[in-house]
Formats: sequence, C-alpha cells, structure tokens
Amino acid sequence: MSPQVTSTPFDQTTPGPELPGLVARYRNSVEAALYRSVPESKGDDLFFPIRYHLGWVDQDGAPTESSLTHGKALRPTLCLFACEALGADPARALPAAAALELIHNFSLIHDDIQDQDVERRHQPTLWHLLGIPRALVAGNGLQSVGDLAILNVAGGDVPPETALRVSQILTESYLEMIQGQCLDLDFESKTDIAAGEYLQMIAYKTGALIRSGLEIGALLATDDQIAIQAFSRFGSGIGRAFQIRDDFLGIWGDQATTGKPRGNDIRRRKKTFPLVFALENARGKSREELLRIYGQEELTDTDVENVLTILETVGAQKQSRSITETSAQEALAALKPIALPAWAQNEAESLVDFLAHREF
Amino acid sequence: MSPQVTSTPFDQTTPGPELPGLVARYRNSVEAALYRSVPESKGDDLFFPIRYHLGWVDQDGAPTESSLTHGKALRPTLCLFACEALGADPARALPAAAALELIHNFSLIHDDIQDQDVERRHQPTLWHLLGIPRALVAGNGLQSVGDLAILNVAGGDVPPETALRVSQILTESYLEMIQGQCLDLDFESKTDIAAGEYLQMIAYKTGALIRSGLEIGALLATDDQIAIQAFSRFGSGIGRAFQIRDDFLGIWGDQATTGKPRGNDIRRRKKTFPLVFALENARGKSREELLRIYGQEELTDTDVENVLTILETVGAQKQSRSITETSAQEALAALKPIALPAWAQNEAESLVDFLAHREF
Repeated sequence: MSPQVTSTPFDQTTPGPELPGLVARYRNSVEAALYRSVPESKGDDLFFPIRYHLGWVDQDGAPTESSLTHGKALRPTLCLFACEALGADPARALPAAAALELIHNFSLIHDDIQDQDVERRHQPTLWHLLGIPRALVAGNGLQSVGDLAILNVAGGDVPPETALRVSQILTESYLEMIQGQCLDLDFESKTDIAAGEYLQMIAYKTGALIRSGLEIGALLATDDQIAIQAFSRFGSGIGRAFQIRDDFLGIWGDQATTGKPRGNDIRRRKKTFPLVFALENARGKSREELLRIYGQEELTDTDVENVLTILETVGAQKQSRSITETSAQEALAALKPIALPAWAQNEAESLVDFLAHREF
Repeated sequence: MSPQVTSTPFDQTTPGPELPGLVARYRNSVEAALYRSVPESKGDDLFFPIRYHLGWVDQDGAPTESSLTHGKALRPTLCLFACEALGADPARALPAAAALELIHNFSLIHDDIQDQDVERRHQPTLWHLLGIPRALVAGNGLQSVGDLAILNVAGGDVPPETALRVSQILTESYLEMIQGQCLDLDFESKTDIAAGEYLQMIAYKTGALIRSGLEIGALLATDDQIAIQAFSRFGSGIGRAFQIRDDFLGIWGDQATTGKPRGNDIRRRKKTFPLVFALENARGKSREELLRIYGQEELTDTDVENVLTILETVGAQKQSRSITETSAQEALAALKPIALPAWAQNEAESLVDFLAHREF
C-alpha cells in the first residue's frame, strides 16, 4: 500500500487552503519596510548578494518580478497580526516585522552553506553562486541589517525601554534558533533520536523566531502580560504545527505545489519527524532496513520507496498529521484567555488552518 | 641588502614596547564580564565551541590556564579607557567592552573558515576541529552572545536611549567591518589595488570596531559631542596604525615574538599593505616578477625571498613604518581638542606607542 492512497481521518482530499488574507493585506507594507531596511548597493559587493538572496535582483543585478514577500512571509505577518489584534496600529511593529524576515533569511543563507544545498526558490543558492566566503559574509551582513532594523522600533510612541526589550527578545530567540541548529547537527550522526528530543529541537530551531515575532508584536501593542504570554504560547503551537507540516510535505507533498519531488527529504537523508518517529517505532526487519539505508552515503530510488513503505507501516504519516492537529488546537487554545475582536479570532483560525493543512 | 638590517629613522633596535599598563589594569574585570556574558555549557554543543575558541577550555572541555584576555584585549581596553578618561566609572562600559571582544572573536571564527586557516593561538581553529557547519553556527552564537551583552549596557544610571544608541553604533560599525571583508575578498583576485583603496578597506575591516569601541566608551561617559568625536577620530588613527603595524609584522616580524615565520603573509599570498604598495610602485622586471609570483597557487622559498627583495627595493618597509607613524600622530592629535587628565594623556600616548611599535 503506498502512502498517498492511505485513508485516515486527517486526509486532505481537496486542495489545501489558500494563503490567509492577512498575508496579502500586510504584504506591501512588509515589502516596503524591507526595502527601507536594506541599503542600496554601493558597488561594494555586500548588498548585491543580499538583494539577490531576497529575490529582488537576478544574478546580473537586474530587478526581478517575483520577490521574497510573494511567498508566505510568515514571521512578519504573525508579528503584525499580534500587534493589530491587540488593538494597536500594526505600523509600529513594521521595523520588527522586517527584522524578523531579514534574520530568517540570514539563517537560510547559512543553512544552505551547511546543507550544501545548491538551489533555493528555483535559483542557485548564494554560496553556490559566489562561493562560501562571500555567502558567509553576506549572511552576516543580512543579520546586521536585521539588527539595525529592529533598533528602529524605537521612536514615535514606542519608548526606548520597549525597543530595548524587543531587541532582547529577538536576540534571545535567535540564540535559541542557533541552539536548535546545533541539536540538528547532532542528530545527523544519530539514529536514536526520541520524538520528544526532536520536538524540542524544532521548538528552538523553527519555533523560537515564530514565537518571538508574536511576542514582540503583542508587546508593541500592550503591556498586559497575560495577552503577551497568550501570543507567545500561540506562537509555540504554530511553530510546531508549521514545522511538522513542513516535514510532512518534505516527504508526502505534491511536487506540483511544493516544487520538490515526493520523498525529497528521504533522498536528502533529512532526519525529519516522520523518520525520527519511524526510527523510534520500527521493529525487527523494518528497523534493520532503515538503519541499513541510512548507513549509506546515497539513497537509490528503491531505498526511498522502501523507506516510504516503512513510514507507512509504523504510522509515521498519521502521527505527523496528528501532532500537527494537536499543535494547531493548542495554538488556538492559547488565545482563549484573551478576548480578541471577532475579525482577529477569525484570522487566527485561518492562519492556523493554513499552517496545519497547507500543500505548499 | 636584506630588509631586517635596513637602517631608517623608524628602526626599532631595542625590543618593542610592553603591553600598556591599562591592559593589565582592566584585564580582570574584562575577563569577568566575558565570563558573565557566555552562558555555561548545557550539553547542547553550542557553548563548548564558543568557550574553546575563547581559550577557556581545551579540546576535551577541560579548563585552560591561558585565556583570551591574556592577549592584547585591545578593543575592550580602548572602550574602558575612553570611558574612564572622560571621568566616568569604566564599570558602566564593561558590558560594551565584553560585547566588543565577543564580536571581534566571532569575526575571527568566520575569518578562519574563509581563509581556511587551521591554527589560531597555537590551537586548531574551530572549523578545523569541528567542521565548517559547527564553526559557522558557533560563530553566529558568539555574535548573539555579544549582542545580548551590549543590551546589558542599559540599567544603573545608563538610560535606555543611550543603550539603544550604543547598540546602534556597534551594529553599524560591525556592518562596516563586513563591508571591509567584502572589499578584502575582492582584493584577492586583483593586482591593481591602489594604496588608498587598501587604506579604506582596513578602515572598515579593522578600524570600524576599534573606532566604535572608543566612541561607545566616550558616549557612556559624556554627552559632549566634541569629546565623543575626538575619541572616534583617535580610534580611526589607532585602527590604521594597528593594522599597518600588523601588516609589517606579518612580513618582517620576528618569529620569536610573533610566533609566525618571517615572510609569513607573503607565503600565504595575503595582499597586505607592503604588497599593495609594491604592486603599485614596482616597475619593469620587478613588477613582472611580482605578478608572476602572485599568479601561482603556491609560493616557493625563493619566491618569498624574491618578494622580500622587491619590497625592499620599492621602499615598502619604510612606507609601512611611515604610515604607521603618521597614523599614530594623527590619533594623538585627534585628542588635542579635549583636556584629558594627565594620567589619561600618558596612557593614550603609551597605547599609541605600543600599537605603532609593538613586536607582537
């Protein structure tokens, strides 16, 4: 039985949900804030790679039609949403929203070096185009641009104490992200990762920046600690739902919507949740086969098919969906203690539905 | 005639000056501030590499005798000096001083990756010990630790506006450092670098962080813009004197004091000031020979000797000393507009003398 014809209560037989309306509503202002944050190229070879990675220019420096924020722009959207949902003008969170997207992108530049990935968004990755030294430096430059952007939160009616706190929250969460990257590197050589350890790793690596974005957005709207904590916990749930859905799509996603072949993460030997779950739960010959396959440097098509079958046998697909659903419900439950306006409650539900059920 | 017996007004026939007393006086408190800034290892593999790079533990995680701040600790010393020279308690600049040293060290971790250097301070470099991915991530972690340290400037009688400004100055100077790294990467493939371009590059790559450290120390002591600007310009002069002396020692330094063989930077094909000057000024056969030698992937002992002879012929050693002297004088002249107490004036002169004439 092949995984994609499995029938479970979690199956999506219709196409996945669209990008939530909020993403489109905030897109222009996020894009403008990003443009304001990144200095114009001055011929010193730092800002061209940054603008290329952000999708603003092509390899020859010519402006492109498509751009970063034509994507999900998840982190800035969540930050602005928290701010607006708590009754403040989301514009005051724009520098923070831009900083989140910039720092997320900085981490992608370095991730591509680490993973030796040669393509991102259908373009050569920065290190593949310019070599490791330039990509490394451009990533660091992008992080600094993000650090400068967040300092611009101060001003208007945002007091400097709040701006400092925002900067601290962002930096602390970024350090957690790095701790997650370290754990992830450890996992590469391990085959006995407990599912709980994996969930802790992604809470750092993916969750921290999503959570801090919501916390920052809330903090810029209110000093009500209950509301800030509610959005922070909302972020923890969202982060997990988002990453486990990402792991799901990395294996069972449709190439037409994800742009990547089925089983892609298996072929790349990524230890994502379904595989960690299988390594923890497979017994006997299945377990031996998994260990044999992941003991190799490269996987054949047959290996990939065999892994897909084992994942199916141990219920890894079902378990991935189940964790995504539970995390999505936890995210929404976290918002219960605060009385959001109806529009914000609806948007929160749309966001969670999208993140948990998206096909791309 | 071999370079080391050249007699010029700039010759140091006696051993170079000792580390200025200020370094020893601030050392313990800088070290303590660094220890406070770096979290204890929690078994998550992020903080061990950081502590190893800082020289606190060896490859097995055992505490070492020698440590980072047994070195020059230039940046924190300058920052604390500016603060104290302007009449404030240097303790208020300690978080900034620690941040400067942490961020400087972060840049060294990534520099070692870029330059593929396998040894630093007689120990394997981080990437050489743990691989590029872990070194890359550890560098980023160290930068974040530095970013968090600088945010701790706020508190006590340092208002949050000042802390924000300090953070901004540090981040902007760090971005300049990265721009300098980009220019430096450009230079690798160029043989027609003007001396002026080189001086601009090092003003970014080395000068920015030294200058901003002094500016931050001053800003934490006073809101007198003339004094802050004076220390900033003092930093620009010091940065240039320091780097050109570094370039000098990289070629003509004594292995007994520098720990590196004579001609080391030539062998490593580094385009430091003496070489840039020679490429700009050599004519005829000397120029052809330089271009031939630097067109190779590896240099022989004879190549190194030939380059040393050409550097001598065009006066590169003399010119390097001359620029160092001029920059040192400019640094001290920059402090003239402010009336420093006698002890501070003396310390400034000792610092500049050390940086311009040091043998290590």
